Amino acid sequence: MSTVKRDTNLSYNCWLGYRKIKNKDLLIEYKKAFSCISVFGETKTIDAALYELKYGISKMLGKTPRIAGSESSGGINIGLVDRFDILSSKEINDIGDEGFIIKNHDKRIIITGKTGRGILYGVFTFLRLMQLERPVSSMNVIDNPVNMLRMVNQWDNMDGTIERGYAGNSIFYRNNNFVRSKKRIRDYARLLASVGINGIVLNNVNVHHYETRMITKTFLPKVAALADIFREYGITVFLSVNYASPVEIGGLPTADPLDTAVREWWSGTVKEIYSYIPDFGGFLVKADSEYRPGPFTYGRNHAEGANMLASVLKPFNGIVIWRCFVYNCLQDWRDRETDRAKAAYDNFMPLDGEFLDNVILQIKNGPMDFQVREPVSPLFGGLKKTNQMLELQITQEYTGQQKHVCYLVPQWKEVLDFDTYSKGEGSTVKRIISGRVYPQKYCGIAAVSNIGDDETWTGHILAQANLYGYGRLAWNPDMDMNGITDEWIILTFSDHPTVVKNIKSILLNSWRTYENYTSPLGIGWMVNPGHHYGPSVDGYEYSKWGTYHRADCFGIGVDRTVKGTGYTAQYHKRNADMYDNIESCPEELLLFFHRVPYNYRLKSGKTLIQHIYDTHFEGVEQVREFKSKWLSLKDLIDPERFEHVLDRLNTQIEDAIEWRDVVNTYFYRKSGIPDEKGRKIY
Amino acid sequence: MSTVKRDTNLSYNCWLGYRKIKNKDLLIEYKKAFSCISVFGETKTIDAALYELKYGISKMLGKTPRIAGSESSGGINIGLVDRFDILSSKEINDIGDEGFIIKNHDKRIIITGKTGRGILYGVFTFLRLMQLERPVSSMNVIDNPVNMLRMVNQWDNMDGTIERGYAGNSIFYRNNNFVRSKKRIRDYARLLASVGINGIVLNNVNVHHYETRMITKTFLPKVAALADIFREYGITVFLSVNYASPVEIGGLPTADPLDTAVREWWSGTVKEIYSYIPDFGGFLVKADSEYRPGPFTYGRNHAEGANMLASVLKPFNGIVIWRCFVYNCLQDWRDRETDRAKAAYDNFMPLDGEFLDNVILQIKNGPMDFQVREPVSPLFGGLKKTNQMLELQITQEYTGQQKHVCYLVPQWKEVLDFDTYSKGEGSTVKRIISGRVYPQKYCGIAAVSNIGDDETWTGHILAQANLYGYGRLAWNPDMDMNGITDEWIILTFSDHPTVVKNIKSILLNSWRTYENYTSPLGIGWMVNPGHHYGPSVDGYEYSKWGTYHRADCFGIGVDRTVKGTGYTAQYHKRNADMYDNIESCPEELLLFFHRVPYNYRLKSGKTLIQHIYDTHFEGVEQVREFKSKWLSLKDLIDPERFEHVLDRLNTQIEDAIEWRDVVNTYFYRKSGIPDEKGRKIY
Repeated sequence: MSTVKRDTNLSYNCWLGYRKIKNKDLLIEYKKAFSCISVFGETKTIDAALYELKYGISKMLGKTPRIAGSESSGGINIGLVDRFDILSSKEINDIGDEGFIIKNHDKRIIITGKTGRGILYGVFTFLRLMQLERPVSSMNVIDNPVNMLRMVNQWDNMDGTIERGYAGNSIFYRNNNFVRSKKRIRDYARLLASVGINGIVLNNVNVHHYETRMITKTFLPKVAALADIFREYGITVFLSVNYASPVEIGGLPTADPLDTAVREWWSGTVKEIYSYIPDFGGFLVKADSEYRPGPFTYGRNHAEGANMLASVLKPFNGIVIWRCFVYNCLQDWRDRETDRAKAAYDNFMPLDGEFLDNVILQIKNGPMDFQVREPVSPLFGGLKKTNQMLELQITQEYTGQQKHVCYLVPQWKEVLDFDTYSKGEGSTVKRIISGRVYPQKYCGIAAVSNIGDDETWTGHILAQANLYGYGRLAWNPDMDMNGITDEWIILTFSDHPTVVKNIKSILLNSWRTYENYTSPLGIGWMVNPGHHYGPSVDGYEYSKWGTYHRADCFGIGVDRTVKGTGYTAQYHKRNADMYDNIESCPEELLLFFHRVPYNYRLKSGKTLIQHIYDTHFEGVEQVREFKSKWLSLKDLIDPERFEHVLDRLNTQIEDAIEWRDVVNTYFYRKSGIPDEKGRKIY
Repeated sequence: MSTVKRDTNLSYNCWLGYRKIKNKDLLIEYKKAFSCISVFGETKTIDAALYELKYGISKMLGKTPRIAGSESSGGINIGLVDRFDILSSKEINDIGDEGFIIKNHDKRIIITGKTGRGILYGVFTFLRLMQLERPVSSMNVIDNPVNMLRMVNQWDNMDGTIERGYAGNSIFYRNNNFVRSKKRIRDYARLLASVGINGIVLNNVNVHHYETRMITKTFLPKVAALADIFREYGITVFLSVNYASPVEIGGLPTADPLDTAVREWWSGTVKEIYSYIPDFGGFLVKADSEYRPGPFTYGRNHAEGANMLASVLKPFNGIVIWRCFVYNCLQDWRDRETDRAKAAYDNFMPLDGEFLDNVILQIKNGPMDFQVREPVSPLFGGLKKTNQMLELQITQEYTGQQKHVCYLVPQWKEVLDFDTYSKGEGSTVKRIISGRVYPQKYCGIAAVSNIGDDETWTGHILAQANLYGYGRLAWNPDMDMNGITDEWIILTFSDHPTVVKNIKSILLNSWRTYENYTSPLGIGWMVNPGHHYGPSVDGYEYSKWGTYHRADCFGIGVDRTVKGTGYTAQYHKRNADMYDNIESCPEELLLFFHRVPYNYRLKSGKTLIQHIYDTHFEGVEQVREFKSKWLSLKDLIDPERFEHVLDRLNTQIEDAIEWRDVVNTYFYRKSGIPDEKGRKIY
């Protein structure tokens, strides 16, 4: 650990640090144009927008802007669209409920929208443009979110722990109660709103004893207090619920969704929730999965299970988000017929069209479980008559646990851009989840958050980029990866070309690098059981979890073609054919789809085994390269954050070596094939 | 689980159940001979002996014996030797302080000794002979314990957990305090005394926060209360101490054994302990091992560390028992030079002769760690000028965790009978630890207990045999294994020939059976990390613990010969040569000492790989055989214990199958060599 005393503010502020404008001429121009703010309209969210605007401008200009009465017409004007006559009807029609307009007009900057949310998003965009030091004349933006629901899922438990959390404890809970101080929660709301997140699930999908009681009088006042904070920032709160609540807290003998008493109990409960939180979002449900209760217990299917909840939420405009992460978690490793990858499709595809219109299926990507490399879930493009959301994982459970830098935006982009061909070419995942391929009443994107009460929020400062990038992609999945990355670096650190270049190089190479020294070619896992950190090639090989690589002395991989488990048949024919044929199967997914001998030649001309050796040696070298790129930023970054990242990179090098040596040794011992380059394998 | 309501007494009483005498004629004879008890002498231990005698006779005869004044001269007479004129001086000289005489003389049965302990051991022996239904005329015994110290080590923590405990929680502690009810503790003392145990270490060798404070005023009154109970049953209490106590509770800046203040602190502490417990035994110390503090921290060696404590205990006749389980537990798996098996010898052999005469080195067998099969530690026969104790493990950490039947007496017999050749032929381990090869002021045997607060004491009723057998071997390691086993079965269950035959067959085959389906030929481990239950062949292969099998596609095993790590050189030449040569190396230890290709032919004519397959298939069949032998006892054993053991045997079959399949699959995948018999391997 570095002994330098840290200035936690820089880490804490993330991309909302608002450094003073560097360009002197621009500073003068900004000071002139932004010295006064006029506000039109009064809502809590407009108040928040004003607060943010004032705070950001003050920090960037070193001068607090004057707040004028709403009659003033110079400087910055914020308010709802109907207060600005100068907007054309086309402009007004071009934005939806959450869209915004930033308009540079006649010495005024107008930031407007049809709702407080729209104005807030406009303000954060405006502040971003300022920090990026864009000229005032260029400040004309009309923008709308592409996804309707842009959510984060907190896997926080009321005891203060966070399932798969790597950045300290929960900012929401401690000792089976809510934390008292709300400052940090408000700051989290600010961070989320600044990138356009509009929904949050406040508790873990695994709903334990105390969490089950969040929907009761005991805790509802406290949930409502959180909802008040998030509401100001345009964020709707949701809760994860325990499907067995009618039994566990309702005193009923059953939780059967078709039982009248059960339905009435939920109906009463929902009514009570809305009496505390009138704009409550709804429920997230993990049912019949990994020992969680669900409708299967009562011989009902997922549609029956979800629809019952949906029908009682409907009068309040609430929704049910139902997770598709359902599989047999008591598989026998000897069983080669069952294929966990097939489970979500097998469970939910037959129910397409049977869900009420306020149910959304939340589909985890990939089909197995957030591995460093997986194909896209075939439910995308499969389901045609069902509301859908994509579930991603910002927290780095299988991608370095925020000890390693692993920037996930490139991975997410691949998922979002994947063409399912469901309704012809261009039926990409991003178009499906935004309702542009099949009409959906509710749809969007969700991701498991990576924050905790660590001073850096995310444990690793560079992991802040994942939260930022997720929000930006959730807003608009077409956004350019380079642009998002540049933005984050400049907002967070500096626009110095070396800083931008080096950090960008680290970030954009980090996912592939992590993949290089961990599990190869889509095979997944190979981690220590339970905590999932560090290499253990056979760690899950003889377990009940359905996650096997089946390496022997001849080869490795799972045959998921039509001749194997038949998983490929779940895709649209064009993709099914691509994956089915070892020649056309993307090589990075080779071992996910095929069982391959070690001497198989890849397109590079290398054998599979040599590829494994080479990528693992390369992976370590790449991390060393990250370190040298980081070291060259010593005088360009504040010492606190410089040392913090350097510490983590040193750990990453050490751990990457361990990964490299364990994986290479494992395969060398198993195959008996030496490294062509004669490097040290143990 | 069986639904039969259990009579817990039968399980709880263990081998002290005292069934009514079955043989009618003998019952009449016994009733006549044992209807009256006269006591000569009054000590707490003689009181306990009288209590036991009365209790046992009452149960076996169905009639409470009359207690006569000490003047009476018929029936049973118990008392110290000097109260019986009829004893010859040869008889009196033939027994030591803890020996006893049972003498059938002129219509009297005299049970006597030179101490209360001797009398107590005589009484328990007498009761055993009664339960075995021996005629009164045969009741003439003179016996002495072979080992001086016959100890159990409790790995109990004050929070109530037991490290490596598989029979519930501690009977001593709960919630970081002592339990209030002492009944169970007294019953444990009775069980221990009945097999001749004379010392107990009351807490875990890993001494945590609260346990560190057991040597302070806070807890000493409570330790003293336990000592009072054990004293009645002739058992001396010891404590495990934290070597860093002077720092942690003494407020000193150091725990350096050569520091005067440290020495004075310990001196004062010891004085205080003896003010509460005048016959306190002394300290057990795990120092500089697995993160426990020790003299190394201060640049002192183990002799300096132990001698300091010994010198302050000496005035009170206290002793220091210093564990030799010292090794590098941060080994790099890549390092093939370091050999954990060598560590104890390397650490302690150079110090031979440097320890004070009230220090005993407690040497764990084997040299690695309580595996199902290991060679004997080379410190036995190596050390010539140092007090020594053998440390065994009754609790089945690596031998089935009391879910599997694994009777360890055969293993212990092999260890005890092992000839070190240290001082010529016959320098067996049992003769060394009893001081018959080299003179030692203190020596003996210790074992980690397998009991907890489970109704059965040991989790598995058949595991009671291990506690019994340990005590009997501690008393006299020359005792015949068949005899011990028969005794235990008859005392515990019945003398029905089928019961004796079948249970004996299960017990005597169980160790080899467990070995068959778990780790082969002395290689050890292959268990899940942490809890050590169930198969994980690579579980410790890439860890820091120094326990590697190094299997690759060609072979398996660790070369510990002089051409390898050189471990064999730690033995006397005759053994070193035996182990060094693959031809003379006992095959059950083949992979402990040699790296062997899978196609190596064993003496059976089988290849190594075929041996692995065969033993694993056989192991499962043997457990099935246990079950069928057990099932045939259905009407010969009480339903409670019958069902209990049956439940465990079913679990054992299931788990043995898992072991078999995982291990066979692992080696099949690694070697690519199919089973000659074409059985199913996955």
